[in-house]
Amino acid sequence: MSQSNTTDVTAYMQSVGQQARAASRALAAANTGDKNSALMAIYDELKSAKADILAANKVDMDKGAKNNLDAALLDRLELNDARFDGMLQGLKDVSALPDPIGEVTDMTYQPSGIHLGKMRVPLGVVGMIYESRPNVTLEAASLALKSGNAIILRGGSEAFESNQAIAKCILKGLNKVGLSEHSVQVLETTDRAAVGELITMTEYVDVIVPRGGKGLIERISRDARVPVIKHLDGNCHTFIDSDADADIAIKVSVNAKTHRYGTCNTMETLLVDEAIANELLPKIAEAIVKADDAMQLRLDDKSQAILNDNATLQGHLSAATSADWDTEYLAPILAIKVVSGIDEAIEHINTHGSQHTDVIITDNYTKSQRFIREVDSASVMINASSRFADGFEYGLGAEIGISTDKIHARGPVGLEGLTSQKWIVYGHGETRA
Amino acid sequence: MSQSNTTDVTAYMQSVGQQARAASRALAAANTGDKNSALMAIYDELKSAKADILAANKVDMDKGAKNNLDAALLDRLELNDARFDGMLQGLKDVSALPDPIGEVTDMTYQPSGIHLGKMRVPLGVVGMIYESRPNVTLEAASLALKSGNAIILRGGSEAFESNQAIAKCILKGLNKVGLSEHSVQVLETTDRAAVGELITMTEYVDVIVPRGGKGLIERISRDARVPVIKHLDGNCHTFIDSDADADIAIKVSVNAKTHRYGTCNTMETLLVDEAIANELLPKIAEAIVKADDAMQLRLDDKSQAILNDNATLQGHLSAATSADWDTEYLAPILAIKVVSGIDEAIEHINTHGSQHTDVIITDNYTKSQRFIREVDSASVMINASSRFADGFEYGLGAEIGISTDKIHARGPVGLEGLTSQKWIVYGHGETRA
Repeated sequence: MSQSNTTDVTAYMQSVGQQARAASRALAAANTGDKNSALMAIYDELKSAKADILAANKVDMDKGAKNNLDAALLDRLELNDARFDGMLQGLKDVSALPDPIGEVTDMTYQPSGIHLGKMRVPLGVVGMIYESRPNVTLEAASLALKSGNAIILRGGSEAFESNQAIAKCILKGLNKVGLSEHSVQVLETTDRAAVGELITMTEYVDVIVPRGGKGLIERISRDARVPVIKHLDGNCHTFIDSDADADIAIKVSVNAKTHRYGTCNTMETLLVDEAIANELLPKIAEAIVKADDAMQLRLDDKSQAILNDNATLQGHLSAATSADWDTEYLAPILAIKVVSGIDEAIEHINTHGSQHTDVIITDNYTKSQRFIREVDSASVMINASSRFADGFEYGLGAEIGISTDKIHARGPVGLEGLTSQKWIVYGHGETRA
Repeated sequence: MSQSNTTDVTAYMQSVGQQARAASRALAAANTGDKNSALMAIYDELKSAKADILAANKVDMDKGAKNNLDAALLDRLELNDARFDGMLQGLKDVSALPDPIGEVTDMTYQPSGIHLGKMRVPLGVVGMIYESRPNVTLEAASLALKSGNAIILRGGSEAFESNQAIAKCILKGLNKVGLSEHSVQVLETTDRAAVGELITMTEYVDVIVPRGGKGLIERISRDARVPVIKHLDGNCHTFIDSDADADIAIKVSVNAKTHRYGTCNTMETLLVDEAIANELLPKIAEAIVKADDAMQLRLDDKSQAILNDNATLQGHLSAATSADWDTEYLAPILAIKVVSGIDEAIEHINTHGSQHTDVIITDNYTKSQRFIREVDSASVMINASSRFADGFEYGLGAEIGISTDKIHARGPVGLEGLTSQKWIVYGHGETRA
């Protein structure tokens, strides 16, 4: 369908929402085997439609090139052989995960006689809003199905043909096993008004999961009436304590900064205790610059005093401004600050950080425990690279996203993030006195 | 303070927010003993200020009477001896609860070598907005302190003097044990603009808990940018299945409807399987009317056919309109519908209910399990009164509120609802490959 005015979009989205709600009821009652069969039926459909999907993607790519999309966006848009196969493997992996639904916990007798527990259930209807990468369409659909949720997918207009081609296979797969075809609905409009409807239909949508740039996430969070599981930014710190093991400090810092730049769990600021800064900071800085010659180090006054005359670092150094402490570079740039000790480190992290992932390198028991307790971030680590903050590294088997919220889901979010728990009561005729 | 314009309120709320955030950092690191000492110090202050507090409440009551507040509101506003003592007992009870903070769960080694777990931590800053009942001031403050959260309290203007008198004692108690006096801030303004600020200060407030009428909750939910743990309405059902035990059906129905009317977990609609309606519905209806002579029964066509000629029920019966299925009466009124079986019952509940608490009365295994699984409500019960949906009956020891949301906290919310979990990683120098 294509919309020409807002009334049409509203009516279209209302009908999408109603269908999703109805499908979610059926999915909540679907058994694990049926859900897995659906995933494997979709797998088969995708496999045999590979040529069609890659052709649709080619149409998007050509259009993108004509519209002068930037190289990074085009790269994310592209589906090649390897990515297509990876996408299918991901589907298989999700189907092999344990079903989170139906788990009953904390079943206890209460003084009244009732037997009370909690049962894990789907949230209901998930709304997903994302940009460019068409493999997200399949990934999100498979995670939603596995966790018994219906999903409404709103991909970027630049990936429209790719997403529709993938949607066609999902639909066929659902039909084959007799699950409602409204379990997964990929919007057939690129009208921006559809997003506005999706994030405010509280009667039909239970949670919104946006994926994309910070601007998109902020816009959605601001306008949404439906709860949002969101990831804003990752301004991650590594604090080198005075009792740090030097080798660990160096190798973890290098890994946290240089393993990948575009990821949210990459270190952006290095904090070094002044007691060991003279000895250890040059070694860490040299190792980081050695790992990537393009590295730029932004230094506070004290680290300038230590590093400015270092021959190896010439051409890599500049003075930090106050903005540096609040910046997620996503680039070969590292801010460095010498701090008076753990108090200043924790204070700096809680003030300037994004509550994503922060690390202490230390061999001191007391300071390790203070850091774990007092740093208010989704992931707090001792002697490990911040790059481990990831659904797969955390053993979740899948990742819906990484949440910087405190409500509901925090940090890497697996299938459980798309579930809720209801209270269940097994009674024997009890009445309240 | 008192505000004359919006700029003042904004500046005031910003400063309240900043102070709360700073206090929340200290509270998150406070140990259990200190938090309990603070609660008991507040207990002592309240005990010795009893006369002052009751006098302040008298000022509010007199002003309320002069302003023609309705009787129900005045009743909720009143602090008498018994309520004051109950309030103090509640404080003692909270101090005796286990501390939810610091609990570490799911600590496991991952293939990378990191030791990964989850630690329960406070949410940070809670904003509470409530009406009339001044004991909520103390209850909310004690729950926040116990769970390591700072709290900003915004009570109704009708309870201003009572709330300020209680706040003074809280402040003294906090001072006595050396906890920040900004841990609990009772707003010193009744300017409505303060609420608008409180629910949008995402940088300083982590969650809003509103308590009050549906209008207040809807307004707050609509305008809030901070996540809200909310309770909208309780349109609770009891479904009498064809395999119900007659005695249980009767006594649970009577209890669920007539135990109290103003509570959200009171039954508002009775659904009866047509296979046993002729035999059982008259007995249930008679027992309910016998329990309260003021009871009004609103009947669908089929139940009219069964009950209209019943001598005992004359004067209690009327025809239901479609609006009845969606109404929370909070009064001695009950809607009754005869359904064709469990399918129609579940469909009716999921369509018309408020996802609060719904009950099946049955002795059939398969139907009991279908009901538990397929009814999408915060509490789903077999053979027990819906009146059990309550934080104390569920053994939570305290109740922040009852949530009709699916995100974060669902159903009765105890201290855990004011907490979050962060991931903690104990490493040994691991880096990501």
